[in-house]
Amino acid sequence: AMEAAPPPTSPSGLSAYVAVSQLLGLTLLATTGAWLGRYRGGVAWHSPLQFNAHPLCMVLGMVFLQGDALLVYRVFRHEAKRSTKALHALLHGLALLIALVGIIAVFESHRTKGIPDMYSLHSWCGMATFVLYLLQWFLGCGFFLFPGASFSLRGWYKPQHIFFGITLFILSITSCLLGITEMLLFKISDSYSHFVPEGILANTLGVLLVAFGLVVGYVLTREEWKRPPLAEELALSMDFKTLTEGESPGG
Amino acid sequence: AMEAAPPPTSPSGLSAYVAVSQLLGLTLLATTGAWLGRYRGGVAWHSPLQFNAHPLCMVLGMVFLQGDALLVYRVFRHEAKRSTKALHALLHGLALLIALVGIIAVFESHRTKGIPDMYSLHSWCGMATFVLYLLQWFLGCGFFLFPGASFSLRGWYKPQHIFFGITLFILSITSCLLGITEMLLFKISDSYSHFVPEGILANTLGVLLVAFGLVVGYVLTREEWKRPPLAEELALSMDFKTLTEGESPGG
Repeated sequence: AMEAAPPPTSPSGLSAYVAVSQLLGLTLLATTGAWLGRYRGGVAWHSPLQFNAHPLCMVLGMVFLQGDALLVYRVFRHEAKRSTKALHALLHGLALLIALVGIIAVFESHRTKGIPDMYSLHSWCGMATFVLYLLQWFLGCGFFLFPGASFSLRGWYKPQHIFFGITLFILSITSCLLGITEMLLFKISDSYSHFVPEGILANTLGVLLVAFGLVVGYVLTREEWKRPPLAEELALSMDFKTLTEGESPGG
Repeated sequence: AMEAAPPPTSPSGLSAYVAVSQLLGLTLLATTGAWLGRYRGGVAWHSPLQFNAHPLCMVLGMVFLQGDALLVYRVFRHEAKRSTKALHALLHGLALLIALVGIIAVFESHRTKGIPDMYSLHSWCGMATFVLYLLQWFLGCGFFLFPGASFSLRGWYKPQHIFFGITLFILSITSCLLGITEMLLFKISDSYSHFVPEGILANTLGVLLVAFGLVVGYVLTREEWKRPPLAEELALSMDFKTLTEGESPGG
């Protein structure tokens, strides 16, 4: 017997946490802009300021947009899964594009100034994160978005996709903190230890990055806030279970 | 009816992952020792080398021992919960003590050399992590080890304890990476960009720290590898459920 479905509501608390995450995300971008604008001469492409496009793009793409892409299943919890999935892939794709612009900015700026590439821990962590993030995006599209992969293959890959997705988000934030530390020690190594305003502002940006990661991570891992399957998805998975009961390894 | 209990075994794969984590942990310590011994003059307390006790203690306490403390519920999965809990608290306590020695080392070394404290992003992240880790330890002992807290209070606190425990472990590793970057830019800022062996070694230490965190994190979050409740624990929780069924808010 079909019972009357309750009106779709979000669990109490979830909306507040999501709102805080978005406030933090916007504060993150404003703080990055304030640092680059107030103390580093601003951002421009064909100029000695090209480097400054790097931190701005990485915070926008690899942190803010990547974080929001992770949140879509919690926020749009009563939409059809297919639409939410498309939005998830789209936001990650946009994050990758913006991050690519940020990476081009630092390589071109290094070439102009004759600075070697890829020698620092920041560059190793950051590049590894970007390449694995791109790989994760292709794998995600291949397994979940295109119709080829079987139900059981998707079921096997899903927990891996989630674990590595959260890992890459954490590594992105870590790479940003390493980049902030590098930039401060390159630019204000003499005055950093005297608690100058630029140092305090950039440290605060680091703290905000951690806070954003913490709130997004809390929303993602809270069991009661996971997206509940829609009625039709449950029915589909029941059909599938009945179909495959015999040949499942039962692990 | 009581059925014959199957002999206690660990899930396949878990032991291999734990072994890899321990190999990585030891490699971590060896790499830290090699860096400090080969390139930084070694470690000694009442000497200009006192600073070098800082990275060694932090990697040993805040990463290796903290990581192992997190793993005990997966490794000792068939022991009485009370013993495993005591080991968990003991390892975290040891980690805290060793980290405290490492923190004293850097403050004393700064005082001797006239360097200001607590101005860098590394110091902000590291100190916040240590203080919150100490707080988490006291809360953990208060809720789970001493008999005062009620069953429902423990049930409410447990997911928070787990989330913040993993968060603090990640923040500890992040703080180490920030410390490595700072130390390289203080000590070898002129040669770092020329791919000198010390830079490569210290970067590799950073990569190993990330790898250790990744393996430990994977073991901790894999659903099938969680510690199964023992028969007597299940019975106890059933009794509790029956007792409190009426007054539960049902959330």
